[in-house]
Amino acid sequence: MTDSFDSSDAFRHAKPLKYAHSVTLAEPLALEQGGRLPEVTVAYETYGTLSDRRDNAVLVCHALTGDSHVARHDEDDDPGWWDLVVGPGKPIDTDRWFVICPNLLGGCRGTTGPNSVNPQTGRRYATDFPVITVGDIVEVQRLLLDHLGITRLRAAVGGSLGGHNVMAWAVRHPERIAGAAVVAASPRLTSQALAFDVVGRNAILRDPLYHKGQYYDDGPGPMVGLAIARMLGHITYLSREAMTQKFGACRLHPRDVQTQFETKFSVGSYLAYQGDRFGERFDPNSYLTLTMAIDLFDLGEDKETLREAFRPATCRWLLLSFSSDWLFPPFQSQQMVDALIAENKPVSYCNVQSACGHDAFLLPDQLPIYGELLRAFLANLTPDDEERETTSARVQSPIPNPQSPAPNPSSLPDSKSIFHHHRLDYDTILELIPAGSSVLDLGCGTGELLARLRRRGHRRIMGVEWDEQAILACVCRGLNVVQADLNQGLPAFAAGQFDFVILSQTLQTVLDVPRVLTDMLRVGRRGIVSFPNIAFHRHRRQLAEEGRAPYGHALQEFHWYDTPNLRFLSLNDFGDFCRTHGFQLLEQVALDTSADARVETDPNLNADVAIAVLSR
Amino acid sequence: MTDSFDSSDAFRHAKPLKYAHSVTLAEPLALEQGGRLPEVTVAYETYGTLSDRRDNAVLVCHALTGDSHVARHDEDDDPGWWDLVVGPGKPIDTDRWFVICPNLLGGCRGTTGPNSVNPQTGRRYATDFPVITVGDIVEVQRLLLDHLGITRLRAAVGGSLGGHNVMAWAVRHPERIAGAAVVAASPRLTSQALAFDVVGRNAILRDPLYHKGQYYDDGPGPMVGLAIARMLGHITYLSREAMTQKFGACRLHPRDVQTQFETKFSVGSYLAYQGDRFGERFDPNSYLTLTMAIDLFDLGEDKETLREAFRPATCRWLLLSFSSDWLFPPFQSQQMVDALIAENKPVSYCNVQSACGHDAFLLPDQLPIYGELLRAFLANLTPDDEERETTSARVQSPIPNPQSPAPNPSSLPDSKSIFHHHRLDYDTILELIPAGSSVLDLGCGTGELLARLRRRGHRRIMGVEWDEQAILACVCRGLNVVQADLNQGLPAFAAGQFDFVILSQTLQTVLDVPRVLTDMLRVGRRGIVSFPNIAFHRHRRQLAEEGRAPYGHALQEFHWYDTPNLRFLSLNDFGDFCRTHGFQLLEQVALDTSADARVETDPNLNADVAIAVLSR
Repeated sequence: MTDSFDSSDAFRHAKPLKYAHSVTLAEPLALEQGGRLPEVTVAYETYGTLSDRRDNAVLVCHALTGDSHVARHDEDDDPGWWDLVVGPGKPIDTDRWFVICPNLLGGCRGTTGPNSVNPQTGRRYATDFPVITVGDIVEVQRLLLDHLGITRLRAAVGGSLGGHNVMAWAVRHPERIAGAAVVAASPRLTSQALAFDVVGRNAILRDPLYHKGQYYDDGPGPMVGLAIARMLGHITYLSREAMTQKFGACRLHPRDVQTQFETKFSVGSYLAYQGDRFGERFDPNSYLTLTMAIDLFDLGEDKETLREAFRPATCRWLLLSFSSDWLFPPFQSQQMVDALIAENKPVSYCNVQSACGHDAFLLPDQLPIYGELLRAFLANLTPDDEERETTSARVQSPIPNPQSPAPNPSSLPDSKSIFHHHRLDYDTILELIPAGSSVLDLGCGTGELLARLRRRGHRRIMGVEWDEQAILACVCRGLNVVQADLNQGLPAFAAGQFDFVILSQTLQTVLDVPRVLTDMLRVGRRGIVSFPNIAFHRHRRQLAEEGRAPYGHALQEFHWYDTPNLRFLSLNDFGDFCRTHGFQLLEQVALDTSADARVETDPNLNADVAIAVLSR
Repeated sequence: MTDSFDSSDAFRHAKPLKYAHSVTLAEPLALEQGGRLPEVTVAYETYGTLSDRRDNAVLVCHALTGDSHVARHDEDDDPGWWDLVVGPGKPIDTDRWFVICPNLLGGCRGTTGPNSVNPQTGRRYATDFPVITVGDIVEVQRLLLDHLGITRLRAAVGGSLGGHNVMAWAVRHPERIAGAAVVAASPRLTSQALAFDVVGRNAILRDPLYHKGQYYDDGPGPMVGLAIARMLGHITYLSREAMTQKFGACRLHPRDVQTQFETKFSVGSYLAYQGDRFGERFDPNSYLTLTMAIDLFDLGEDKETLREAFRPATCRWLLLSFSSDWLFPPFQSQQMVDALIAENKPVSYCNVQSACGHDAFLLPDQLPIYGELLRAFLANLTPDDEERETTSARVQSPIPNPQSPAPNPSSLPDSKSIFHHHRLDYDTILELIPAGSSVLDLGCGTGELLARLRRRGHRRIMGVEWDEQAILACVCRGLNVVQADLNQGLPAFAAGQFDFVILSQTLQTVLDVPRVLTDMLRVGRRGIVSFPNIAFHRHRRQLAEEGRAPYGHALQEFHWYDTPNLRFLSLNDFGDFCRTHGFQLLEQVALDTSADARVETDPNLNADVAIAVLSR
């Protein structure tokens, strides 16, 4: 049996990146943890053209083992690690944006890292390479932007460690970034994710060929330890479902790979292959350095610390997680979103349904969602900072994309509505909201009501929605919308954060009614609730004369067994509820939507829809 | 720095188990994968007293790294690994049961394994130890029982690998086992779980001190590799939540442990400690042997294969999983339960809500559920096999347990019912079911209706329930009940598997009504549905005259905003539904439960509860 490690010179012979530029920074770099680098070289690649106003630059930040080669430069070029997302006409459209992708400090593909020669000793740094942080990584990128003459990024975009990198940008250099797109990241690693990194590092550090890090001129290096770490990493990048799909059926039919690792099971042959290949392109000392930088990244354990961490930021935010990502699980993105909301930062968030695990952002499966969200987010960023510290957005049409058209709002949930063309209830709600008020719309659908508010000049407006496609439609409209389940209440929002909180035709679909209403009146100084009235005369007749559960117009033509409406109430019932729960019913407007008219006489009998304005 | 491995002789000096008996089997053992062991010694411990009829023996099967010392023998004894569950008055009550716990074949605590001396060579087996399977492990246990003169076990109980062991018993020696309690196990490892084992083995096999397995007389052995494998194992035994609880707050305050592994983070110091300690008691070759036995365990990938695997079994089954177990996740127990149901095996199942991960079955947190389920399951097993191949159970009161009393059915969900003392609807349902019919009760609560059917002599009866405490109450009653969410339909059940399927006062709480009703009429030749009638005269008046959503008696005194009832229908609505969905409404009984009477005239007006008999 041949040992694939004995004969190769491993990562030291990784193919050079032919399109990478390289710049050596003028000054030594002082590091956050106290170390110092006498000299730093940055390798980076660029795509597209910097505009005359230098205002179309997008920084793409790579993950742990990535490099500057984010995309092909031409047809003959090697594939990039994010060709799916970056390129002409792609979500990060290089026909429009000037994309910059640097290799990270501490990496091993051109930027200064442990395998670089220390100019002060003439030897490779190895373990003399100081502990670095994500903050140091950002500092090197900032110096690179200075060198390129870019004072302000339109956006920084990154997944995994790249997402941490983007967050660090936004909070350290708020004046230099208009938008932060953070994909599959976390405020800090879970103890579980941290534990995997620890085991991986232990495998490298205790490999006898590690030679205290001085393996560069002495044998193959800790290739077994590195491979073990990489195998472990690969398990965490995939979801359980994805692994079962890949390896479940062919369990005992491994691929035929040349390796000294176990290959009895197909999943074993895959891991062996990945482990062996990794050693050909990655330096174990870089692995130690960069995993430690991730492990030290910590925006805070609790909401207060997190809020504080995000406070300096002035950019708009897009956060994306993937439902089956168990390395940086969705609840961690939710924590960041909650903190951003509490700090009144303009943020959109979607937890993309996916079976692909952490790697989903590198795969085509959910590209129609996450790619288009990125495209729409970038398209709605303004180059200057006129709108800082508001959650508003300028009016802009969704960017048409021939490959994957933005969703047509009329095909989306709102269109199920009973209100065709003209929405009397929206008109009424708009009348009830004084000009300039800040508004949170719960269950905002595709953002129709919010868009009308924006047209009327409201600046601090925001939506909460559950449906992925509806969220995409909102982001295409330039609105800020976060995904949340209303039955969980509104824990992210602070007391009195909005002038008005709207629950439009949604109350009747909610399971935990008291929680939702209580929370909406905590968050808003006023609440506006619209709901169908079960005691409308037509419904009374249906039950009393036909002996049938109420149905029809305002109940949206569903049957008793398939309606999304789970709660049935009359105006009187709602009045009672407000009294027993300590809500003030400040104003009530009754509508007969089938007659397209307001109802003044006996609203509990004559209205099919009620709109109530509440406060505590 | 001292290396904790250099000076110790590691696992070879593990403390002997002072209460372990040892027996050497008379014959050589032929193994499933083709190997052969010339001689097998089994170490085992016993607790309690074997009854004169030799019918109270309970086999406890340990997990990967356990041993025969399942519990203390007396106060001065060392703790056992399952003291929580096994002992006088404990769930597996050694005052009542004769408990036998053998060390597994391939282990390293007294039973023949890789560190045993091969009598044919005079040297330790090391890598000459043949590949063994869980079937081989069972065969050795069977020979041990022969030696002890036990022809039939009351039950076998085990968690994790111990659960696989129990399943192998039940399908290989059906005549020798009355009950199988399988905790936190799986039909086969997920590809993810398998991958972790592969990485662990690679760490051992590629440790330079492994010396091709012949490390016993040559240095400390592959202690680094073993520790890496153990660290990895520990991560998978804990849930993410549990790890955060343990290590989240004190992230950067590691315990002070003597180790050469990384201890920068507190989770790292924990893993380092666990990794180092493991080497003092466990043989790396045993780790390789036993993980391979688990990895080869495979009852089948799909339902058909699984059904076939379970077909020979004649025992009663209790399966338990833990909600946060991601090594043997609940859906895998569900797969086994589904296959057992499809094969008409008497089975109970509960997915115990827990934050403790795979290790939950070794921890006190959920003991009041899983322990009492085990106790009740054992208590309701008959020593003989009179009831094989039925899902019935004999009448037996719940076993009182002074420490953790069995739940009082009157404090459980059924008691919320409107029907005090006397239940007209149950009486009616019972009248509608011919004697001897097989019955499945969906949403069976604490099993009141099923218990009445059993008293009437029905043998093949079974319940489906969601509430954990209600499930425990059913198991205490000796009923077979499985946990399931009715909104997911009844995928486990075969077409026509029961004469009657009952949905008693549950239809109105279900979201996906068509799915539930369609599935119940697939599984049952007849369906019986009872539900509250929205068109009851009192409800009509409430809406028509008071202008309020119906409330009161048959709707269980809830309000519109807190009722568990999400679907509102009249008898007429239900009739329409049956017509449009192709269901035959064979018979309908209308009740006025407030008057405790049947309704003959205009039931859609005069009944508050309807009971319908359906077929396709």
